[in-house]
Amino acid sequence: MILKRIENVLSQPYGQGAQKKVVIGAADGAPTFVMRIFDVIPGGASSDHSHDFEHEVLILKGQATLKSDGPDRLVTEGTAIFIPANERHQLVNSGKDTLRFMCCVPLRGEDSSGVAPSGSC
Amino acid sequence: MILKRIENVLSQPYGQGAQKKVVIGAADGAPTFVMRIFDVIPGGASSDHSHDFEHEVLILKGQATLKSDGPDRLVTEGTAIFIPANERHQLVNSGKDTLRFMCCVPLRGEDSSGVAPSGSC
Repeated sequence: MILKRIENVLSQPYGQGAQKKVVIGAADGAPTFVMRIFDVIPGGASSDHSHDFEHEVLILKGQATLKSDGPDRLVTEGTAIFIPANERHQLVNSGKDTLRFMCCVPLRGEDSSGVAPSGSC
Repeated sequence: MILKRIENVLSQPYGQGAQKKVVIGAADGAPTFVMRIFDVIPGGASSDHSHDFEHEVLILKGQATLKSDGPDRLVTEGTAIFIPANERHQLVNSGKDTLRFMCCVPLRGEDSSGVAPSGSC
């Protein structure tokens, strides 16, 4: 059993004004999926992209505009988002405070070094 | 893409004084893993058990005593827990407020109806 405080997990720069933490991943022995947490400054954003694996996202703090091939949607703390494979997506921090969200991906969406492969979120 | 507010997801009684919500699951088309959220009243607990699949847990609100085959450990908002397959575990709400935690499992840890199979958490 492995316990971690989020604040003690190393951050990696990501996207535009964002930081990524691989909280539970292959290095911990996770066999199926990986838990990551992203912190995004106001005006910052995750990558605008799509890829061949799904996301399961939970907004933990702040607010974001979720961009996709449909209309923009506002998401806040307590919103969960399922993004199927190959759907375009981007989370833009449209609030005044830091946006924090959790994003789980299957193991192949995050490599064993904890560094996202090109095109992943 | 599917968006849900946690408060709008149906709760199912679970454990002792706990409610489970399957927030993103097979019914949504999740192909690999399932996101569940548990709310536990003070003094309540999840099941004391082990099973042949892993958990990835994030404490969202409140505090819990994590019971295992080792010493009890206190976990609070911002603690992530990786519980490998076959390790005994139980989260007891040892605080004065509702405990809320997210717990993701591989798809086989949660059946397609959204009702946990016997022995799952």
